[in-house]
Amino acid sequence: MYIDELSDAECREVLSRSHIGRLACSHNHQPYVIPTNFAFDGRFIYSFATLGQKVEWMRANPLVCFEVDEVASEYHWTSIVIYGRYEELADKPEFERDRIEAYASLSKRAVWWEPAYIAQGQRDEPRSLVPVFFRIHINKMTGHRATSDSQDENGLTPIPG
Amino acid sequence: MYIDELSDAECREVLSRSHIGRLACSHNHQPYVIPTNFAFDGRFIYSFATLGQKVEWMRANPLVCFEVDEVASEYHWTSIVIYGRYEELADKPEFERDRIEAYASLSKRAVWWEPAYIAQGQRDEPRSLVPVFFRIHINKMTGHRATSDSQDENGLTPIPG
Repeated sequence: MYIDELSDAECREVLSRSHIGRLACSHNHQPYVIPTNFAFDGRFIYSFATLGQKVEWMRANPLVCFEVDEVASEYHWTSIVIYGRYEELADKPEFERDRIEAYASLSKRAVWWEPAYIAQGQRDEPRSLVPVFFRIHINKMTGHRATSDSQDENGLTPIPG
Repeated sequence: MYIDELSDAECREVLSRSHIGRLACSHNHQPYVIPTNFAFDGRFIYSFATLGQKVEWMRANPLVCFEVDEVASEYHWTSIVIYGRYEELADKPEFERDRIEAYASLSKRAVWWEPAYIAQGQRDEPRSLVPVFFRIHINKMTGHRATSDSQDENGLTPIPG
């Protein structure tokens, strides 16, 4: 198995064709990671969430890590890791243009947002269904791609990191 | 779309049939997340890595978050989130039994570990290929499953968190 680093352009290609990543934030040295829908406009990662732990933690500590991968098998995968900064696109006049851009980017995939029918009774506590829009500024981005000559590899190789 | 919480037993079922998760650690308030091969023996998450940032950060701060998901579409997915604690299975006599157990769990999937042919020239710096075995103690685990009645949903729903 060979592991190669991707160029910045190759990383951006992966981001452009993907729509689910894993967003990590942390609070008091406890990391937290969950899958997150997103859209990439060539500059920012746009996403949204209902108010909950993720948003509360990112408001308190805007340093995040965003990971996007395409895993075909242990021997054929691509992974992009972004160190970034959370910026909330608050429902205020000064963010109106950014919110419109975020909505435009997220809706390009022909799926449109509507409130979830969350089984509230099964949640610890009711949560607001008003979406919080945010974007991630990319501070640093790296990408790796694993490939293999053989179809019947028998080596389990740790993903670098 | 409906989002339901999974029982502890359902979470463990997902872990048992999965082999790639996303491991998040953090250092000085900067989170870091990457895909990670793993095995679950019913009690611990076992994995290994070559020495690098991930291992160095988890040695400094053993609080981690491990996420495992099965995403069929925006409307059909399962996600397990574990808050845990990193424990390194050092190459010392007192960890020998745990290392054997870790190796046994990881090798059950019929793929065996061998050093990666990493393109060292393309890395920032050479890295040791000696594997670091570790396990994650599960402090808290939650799971969610999204399902949908409709095949043609047009709602983009944020994944809770």
